[in-house]
Amino acid sequence: MESPKIPLIVLMTDFGNDPYSGIVIGRILQINPLVKVSTLTNHVNPHDIRHGAFILLKSYKYFPLNTIFLVVVDPGVGSSRRAIAAQIDNYYFIGPDNGIFSPIIADKEYSSVVELRIPENASYTFHGRDVFAPAAAKLSQSYSLKDLGPTSTLKASLDFFWDPSSSTGEAIFIDHFGNIITNIPNSINLKYNKEYYLRTPRTTIKLTLVRSYFEGSGTKPILLVSSFETLEIGLRNGKAIDLVDISPGDRIQFCRVE
Amino acid sequence: MESPKIPLIVLMTDFGNDPYSGIVIGRILQINPLVKVSTLTNHVNPHDIRHGAFILLKSYKYFPLNTIFLVVVDPGVGSSRRAIAAQIDNYYFIGPDNGIFSPIIADKEYSSVVELRIPENASYTFHGRDVFAPAAAKLSQSYSLKDLGPTSTLKASLDFFWDPSSSTGEAIFIDHFGNIITNIPNSINLKYNKEYYLRTPRTTIKLTLVRSYFEGSGTKPILLVSSFETLEIGLRNGKAIDLVDISPGDRIQFCRVE
Amino acid sequence: MESPKIPLIVLMTDFGNDPYSGIVIGRILQINPLVKVSTLTNHVNPHDIRHGAFILLKSYKYFPLNTIFLVVVDPGVGSSRRAIAAQIDNYYFIGPDNGIFSPIIADKEYSSVVELRIPENASYTFHGRDVFAPAAAKLSQSYSLKDLGPTSTLKASLDFFWDPSSSTGEAIFIDHFGNIITNIPNSINLKYNKEYYLRTPRTTIKLTLVRSYFEGSGTKPILLVSSFETLEIGLRNGKAIDLVDISPGDRIQFCRVE
Repeated sequence: MESPKIPLIVLMTDFGNDPYSGIVIGRILQINPLVKVSTLTNHVNPHDIRHGAFILLKSYKYFPLNTIFLVVVDPGVGSSRRAIAAQIDNYYFIGPDNGIFSPIIADKEYSSVVELRIPENASYTFHGRDVFAPAAAKLSQSYSLKDLGPTSTLKASLDFFWDPSSSTGEAIFIDHFGNIITNIPNSINLKYNKEYYLRTPRTTIKLTLVRSYFEGSGTKPILLVSSFETLEIGLRNGKAIDLVDISPGDRIQFCRVE
Repeated sequence: MESPKIPLIVLMTDFGNDPYSGIVIGRILQINPLVKVSTLTNHVNPHDIRHGAFILLKSYKYFPLNTIFLVVVDPGVGSSRRAIAAQIDNYYFIGPDNGIFSPIIADKEYSSVVELRIPENASYTFHGRDVFAPAAAKLSQSYSLKDLGPTSTLKASLDFFWDPSSSTGEAIFIDHFGNIITNIPNSINLKYNKEYYLRTPRTTIKLTLVRSYFEGSGTKPILLVSSFETLEIGLRNGKAIDLVDISPGDRIQFCRVE
Repeated sequence: MESPKIPLIVLMTDFGNDPYSGIVIGRILQINPLVKVSTLTNHVNPHDIRHGAFILLKSYKYFPLNTIFLVVVDPGVGSSRRAIAAQIDNYYFIGPDNGIFSPIIADKEYSSVVELRIPENASYTFHGRDVFAPAAAKLSQSYSLKDLGPTSTLKASLDFFWDPSSSTGEAIFIDHFGNIITNIPNSINLKYNKEYYLRTPRTTIKLTLVRSYFEGSGTKPILLVSSFETLEIGLRNGKAIDLVDISPGDRIQFCRVE
């Protein structure tokens, strides 16, 4: 693999609108004023590692090779949870070892993990600024992964529920448009304009699979293939979540109508 | 016109806090790692083409010549609405042909439009990532507009209501400070510290025109010239919208007090 | 001091999700297309100069030397409040003279202030775009501070309340995670796992000082040293503000349990 010519660091955090992500960027630029910094999102639901893990898993491949992802969804900051840096195929990931990277590493050909040293003067509450930002900045310079700490492996793991035999997955998150994003994979046997059932703990709903929001009626929720290539419940010009009783984490069984 | 020396792509979307705009930026940098990417806003009201059209119309001239605006306010994504790229005077615009660019093109001297080809494997729900981002990235490299697709014209159009004979315009949006922004142009006959009436479907209010928020009392709404050079209803240190019964889309007649 | 090699302008505003900060960035890049622009936050509470002053005071040192901070928390825009640019130690600050910079300048070795000229055609409601952005852009080029206007001093001042004799400070803001950030300095005599009292106008609470959120029970608020090196009230995996009756501006007395 060539070394990156235009190093890029991409932030994903649950900092929301607070200045914390701005401070992380400042700290990076203090060390490497030449690096490009971009943001995937600062609005992972607070402390919601699963939400962050799903977004990262489904997004990282749309970034340039050698992108360094700096991830701070870190309810265990200051505890004994480890801080790690990993190379997975041709991408780099820096953040807490709390499971957020485990879905990405699961099936990858090549991965290499190091444990980051925590500087003595690091804040107990802001490793984004004091641990991860310096590590990402150094990696964007001439440092290699092994310069950042001793070789290790991921300890924490996290799985999205998916049972192929019963076609049961889970609701992952609700987006800004009120769409309900699941992890049920886009099966090749799906047919557009056909009806399917979704069974959840509290309800069963019948939905027509359509290509685009525009094909919905605006009064009935519709089933779509999301841009993450999983099933999604949407509503034309409205919020599906207002009409459907599903919450993130709910099991969802996908059933064909006979 | 010279070719851009520092190509700049500027996003305007209704993606809110979701990771979708971060993914669009990733896709751009995958194709052109050298381009600068900035954001006008990701908080156009969801699906509100008129809100987006107004912001873009009133903002684009504050960006460098040759800026490429990548616009995703796109309720019709995946339908037969076309995807276009346009050069209008010395700026470029890429997005859906749903009217969002029509106020800008209306009176301009020079414009050129091409219809973007939709790649076969494009998602039906995320043309921002799969159609507009690659087009913007290519345009920021050595591609010309004509390399992106066949010459065309804008089909969809959108007008802000303005009747000069009755001085009637419309409320466009409410900003973060609770100011009510209208499209009523700043007439040269306006006098500061004079009272004017605004008539709406549900109410008539008398307002004093002042230069700055600071001149208000804090208890009575005031009339100002907005930074968009249109009339705006504000409130010193407060939210005018809490005191005035006006909604986006309402017709507003401006009347001089005799 | 050397001239900056990679000029960096950092925005801090209360513009929230509105396009105003995007427009400010456009205006900067119109003048200096080569400058790097980053954002500390656009979510200072609207018109809350104290909130902005605290964030800036506690954040600026994490940015590269020679960073130019462009600050727009400006309820007095268009009034007689002055617009200024300052060099304080090795950082630059541009914005309204409303007190927002005074805590930074208070104890610094070197500072130099100029009053910005207001261009005749500047909007009365948007100096961020028409006054501060051009000044920041010029400063990022070859202009020196003195090229921007006549030498002056800060007029407005702002203090955070802190009485060392009674150990009484104030609550400054509530962050995105519901943590309550105070300005009570991290005393060297504090001991982890010890209990302390906080007395406020309406309540007295007993809190155990812990290093990290993770050490809390999740049902009782905890006392921590914030990343700003002041005392903070937090809650493991929850929002302290939901359990504690404290508002920004409240006086808070820190007491040792005998």
